[in-house]
Amino acid sequence: MKVTLSALDTYETSFTPLVVIELAQDVKEETKEWLKNRIIAKKKDGGAQLLFRPLLNKHEKETLGSDNLYLVGASRVRLLLGAEALGLVKESVDGTMRTFTYSTRGSFRGFHDDNDDFLTMTECQFIVKHELENLRARDEKMIPGYPQAKLYPGKSLLRRLLTSGIVVQVFPLHDREALKKLEDSWYTRFSLHCQPIDRIRGYFGETVALYFGFLEYFTFALIPMAVIGLPYYLFVWEDYDKYVVFASFNLLWSTVILEVWKRSCADMTYRWGTLLMKRQFEEPRPGFHGVLGVNPVTGREEPLYPSYKRQLRIYLVSLPFVCLCLCLSLHIMMIYFDLEDWALRVHEESSTEWTGVLLYVPSVIYAIVIEIMNRLYRYAAEFLTAWENHRLESAYQNHLVLKVLVFNFLNCFASLFYIAFVLKDMKLLGQSLATLLITSQIINQIAESLLPYWLQKKHSVKVKRKVQALKVDIDATFYEQVVLEKEMSTYLGTFDDYLELFLQFGYVSLFSCVYPLAAAFAVLNNFTEVNSDALKMCRVFKRPFSEPSASIGVWQLAFETMSVIAVVTNCALIGMSPQVNAVFPDSKTELVLIVVVVEHVLLALKFILAFAIPDKPRHIQMKLARLEFESLEALKQQQVQPAADSLKEGGKETAA
Amino acid sequence: MKVTLSALDTYETSFTPLVVIELAQDVKEETKEWLKNRIIAKKKDGGAQLLFRPLLNKHEKETLGSDNLYLVGASRVRLLLGAEALGLVKESVDGTMRTFTYSTRGSFRGFHDDNDDFLTMTECQFIVKHELENLRARDEKMIPGYPQAKLYPGKSLLRRLLTSGIVVQVFPLHDREALKKLEDSWYTRFSLHCQPIDRIRGYFGETVALYFGFLEYFTFALIPMAVIGLPYYLFVWEDYDKYVVFASFNLLWSTVILEVWKRSCADMTYRWGTLLMKRQFEEPRPGFHGVLGVNPVTGREEPLYPSYKRQLRIYLVSLPFVCLCLCLSLHIMMIYFDLEDWALRVHEESSTEWTGVLLYVPSVIYAIVIEIMNRLYRYAAEFLTAWENHRLESAYQNHLVLKVLVFNFLNCFASLFYIAFVLKDMKLLGQSLATLLITSQIINQIAESLLPYWLQKKHSVKVKRKVQALKVDIDATFYEQVVLEKEMSTYLGTFDDYLELFLQFGYVSLFSCVYPLAAAFAVLNNFTEVNSDALKMCRVFKRPFSEPSASIGVWQLAFETMSVIAVVTNCALIGMSPQVNAVFPDSKTELVLIVVVVEHVLLALKFILAFAIPDKPRHIQMKLARLEFESLEALKQQQVQPAADSLKEGGKETAA
Repeated sequence: MKVTLSALDTYETSFTPLVVIELAQDVKEETKEWLKNRIIAKKKDGGAQLLFRPLLNKHEKETLGSDNLYLVGASRVRLLLGAEALGLVKESVDGTMRTFTYSTRGSFRGFHDDNDDFLTMTECQFIVKHELENLRARDEKMIPGYPQAKLYPGKSLLRRLLTSGIVVQVFPLHDREALKKLEDSWYTRFSLHCQPIDRIRGYFGETVALYFGFLEYFTFALIPMAVIGLPYYLFVWEDYDKYVVFASFNLLWSTVILEVWKRSCADMTYRWGTLLMKRQFEEPRPGFHGVLGVNPVTGREEPLYPSYKRQLRIYLVSLPFVCLCLCLSLHIMMIYFDLEDWALRVHEESSTEWTGVLLYVPSVIYAIVIEIMNRLYRYAAEFLTAWENHRLESAYQNHLVLKVLVFNFLNCFASLFYIAFVLKDMKLLGQSLATLLITSQIINQIAESLLPYWLQKKHSVKVKRKVQALKVDIDATFYEQVVLEKEMSTYLGTFDDYLELFLQFGYVSLFSCVYPLAAAFAVLNNFTEVNSDALKMCRVFKRPFSEPSASIGVWQLAFETMSVIAVVTNCALIGMSPQVNAVFPDSKTELVLIVVVVEHVLLALKFILAFAIPDKPRHIQMKLARLEFESLEALKQQQVQPAADSLKEGGKETAA
Repeated sequence: MKVTLSALDTYETSFTPLVVIELAQDVKEETKEWLKNRIIAKKKDGGAQLLFRPLLNKHEKETLGSDNLYLVGASRVRLLLGAEALGLVKESVDGTMRTFTYSTRGSFRGFHDDNDDFLTMTECQFIVKHELENLRARDEKMIPGYPQAKLYPGKSLLRRLLTSGIVVQVFPLHDREALKKLEDSWYTRFSLHCQPIDRIRGYFGETVALYFGFLEYFTFALIPMAVIGLPYYLFVWEDYDKYVVFASFNLLWSTVILEVWKRSCADMTYRWGTLLMKRQFEEPRPGFHGVLGVNPVTGREEPLYPSYKRQLRIYLVSLPFVCLCLCLSLHIMMIYFDLEDWALRVHEESSTEWTGVLLYVPSVIYAIVIEIMNRLYRYAAEFLTAWENHRLESAYQNHLVLKVLVFNFLNCFASLFYIAFVLKDMKLLGQSLATLLITSQIINQIAESLLPYWLQKKHSVKVKRKVQALKVDIDATFYEQVVLEKEMSTYLGTFDDYLELFLQFGYVSLFSCVYPLAAAFAVLNNFTEVNSDALKMCRVFKRPFSEPSASIGVWQLAFETMSVIAVVTNCALIGMSPQVNAVFPDSKTELVLIVVVVEHVLLALKFILAFAIPDKPRHIQMKLARLEFESLEALKQQQVQPAADSLKEGGKETAA
């Protein structure tokens, strides 16, 4: 994808555009010039030493009348040095994974001096992003031309440019050719095969690849549950013992699959190098504010915000607010059940066509209200978490995930819990579960992928027509690509995708013994979900910057917690079922005690299983041990020569 | 403690003996000579480069007729280099903890070229031990003079010498002066002050210091429970609500103290440097055997034993055996209760003086049988764990701890569980608990410290008399010290001490709501336990080699598990108490359900608490983050110069 534009006179001949910077429309020339100089300046002069040029040359600018798009690239050597600075881990020729260094570049598999296949385009874009973000203020007190955009030594320039609105966005470019290949092997041709996870990782980075890996793994892991559940549904097996067997299998199975996932995840991330990659020191997130001081860790000047104030905000404001929202959600649920009762009574008293319709009104209202509440709460949670003023993006994300998870859990499952444990109506529970599961799956697939895809397609046709109408003397395909991608919406991370899977896991596991068909529906949904999510990633959104990650992080914990809750609910459901109650006709107390004992045994078994299954496969453990051993030995080897010298010295000392 | 013996002609003048090697009585001269040469040989010739000499010179040998004791020391520079090889972490002048290197020795606090206070004697002994253990076979096929003691390249010589009985033992020497000072500040003068943990660490090493730190922490942490428990016992508060309040407090308190311990433990081990110290690669344990092969981690030749065979032995032999022992223990408990019943019936039928005595017979027999079973089981567990053939000492220890813990837990608490949940006799439970707790504490203190101390004292008097009777021309004090310490028993590690505390924690927490006085007794016991354990360490046992450790390891998990079990038992006890039953006279089922719900809430709270309290204090986290940041920055700094050079090169490449 070489640029064929004519305006490369002042730059190198082989400029591969990697990242696009969009400035605001009215940015001053002075600022543009300063930004350009900082980006291309030598590293030792505090620059990023990258390549930088406008998308359009002067002639084209005049024709098209817009000049706010800039392309950033980097020379091959610069990228390799950036990879070393990031601590990228690559496979060396002897098959082990090692941290890349420029001086040992020859010892890595796939490194040839004459081509640049060694780093994938995704990695190059990630390196460029990292270098741009690490472009720091030196003696500037403000951004030239913008006195209100204050700077202090060590402040990341890009962050300030983004927060003050001078830079609208920074995004990596798609690689049309590679994308086409990826799509072909991923979802366009319908056939039964696994996803090309390594290719997805190569194109979108580790975080996205791990999501698709988890989605696929989870789908296959649900198949045994779906297969065993089917006959229970078809033949209406409602014997006491079969019930118990199915539930116990589900509970232990869900523990095993979550543990085994950790192992295969370690397997993948070792292969990708992210398991070994050292975490970079995290910068304060863009919205973080505080009094300027010296960071005790880095020694750099940056805003500081006392931790106790944050704790106060969390425990005195956020926590009560979340609790209030939970209560409100429960209250609305109670109103819904009251309404339903009332509608039923009206229908029974005077049964007309109108009252028949009235029966469905409460459910519809409740569904709409839940959806509205989820949205409102999401905004509130984002606002509150931002207001808590976390220094790190990761801390912000964790607090947001926790808030949203708890609320979504209650909102989605409260009515089911109420039906199960207060109304004790197992038939209604099964029906509600099926309705909720199936409708939410259909709505999600449409709202999340197909609708945006359709909108995106319409928009793209419009842009193409506009560009063709211009008929200027430029390489229209590349210009069109940049303008099109600029307008695409931004992929906001895997949060919503994992949340969907999490809720699905809840539907499948919490009440599995009441509705054994849930797993089958989940499997069916996920087979199409893979395709619609893939479509979304490739066609609807801007290409995201890759993010190295070694695991699915907080979601592992969330899924494990859900599987613990599932033990409790399933034991309770079995204890309440009429079939089991028939076995203990005399003593309800005895039944409850037995159920409690069984529950505790299952919980203990779960914890023992989780403890007994190692988190990393043996061969990965061995490789990690080998790396550790080698670094210790290297330390000792370094020491042998000075040791000999200084022992001589020491001998002299003692002799003296 | 300079040696004033006359036989230093061939060695340096300042020989500080650190470690004693005792050979078997009849070791061949050829072997002695070879061992000596290997120990004093240069590092580059595969030696340990240490100082080595017999305890007695020729003249003395003839008089005393024994020559199997050898002293090992090292020059100051050798020790510093050894400290670097071990990766010891020391405080640098700027107050941070850093890995010691010989080249940067000037930047560490307390380092002066003219004295040798920098490394404590304990550290020196640890370094000498490490160097001796790392003395490896080169081309020797066997130990000279002992064809049956086979060697292969890379085999640790000391291990082979020990397993083939040529070396009887290797032990570090006490430092009489330092020991006296330590004792004075520790236990001889009775006063209310904390233990000198840092001094204990300086003399006995981190593992022992952590045990005493934990003992002290645990004792202070029990005081609130003891104080709150006292009025419950004195005023016989048996209201339903006070009961619940006390139990809930205990349960949450025990979670908090275990979490806070982790923090103060991190605090201590950071100060000591062991939190940052990299683990050395572990050697196979002495008893490990297998087919000679190449270790995939080190690339060295060593015995290999397939992991699946070990797994088979664990799951097919050890696990069933442990289960069998547990059943046997339960069976014996049932016999005990039968016997007790029988004795009671005999006493009721024909009440004479003899039958009155008969009443106590079953308890006595049961106590003796339990003690015997514990001992027998311990041997069996050690045998089985050795037979499982673990490669690492740590794996061996973990498997042994697990086996012994489970059995001791059952043996000690089974009768209490039986009384509580089968007989449902709360009064008897309180009595049994008190009897078991108090008698076990008294017996432990006597059998563990006072008795051995008395025996040791008697023995020491005997040795002194013998030495004085010799009246030869040698420095009798030093000779006497070595001979005395040689005969002292070896301290086998903190296992039994922790086990005692673990069982005590069980007595205090499992049934705390039945016998609120337990905590008070535990506190009283621990105050004397500190002193008797200190006496044991200083006077009864050989000085142990220090072992660096960053936490109390598997015991943290054991205590946490106990506190989870305590939630279950206490909830059940409260649910069964007549006071609570009186509140729900009609519906027992409702009561059980409420108890179960409360239990689940408490368990959830425990897990949330454990999750919410960070494992390391903030200031330690900051310091660790700072170290990580610095090492990342150092990597980047290293890179700046080559980067500039290679970018020039790169420019040429592109230009060409």
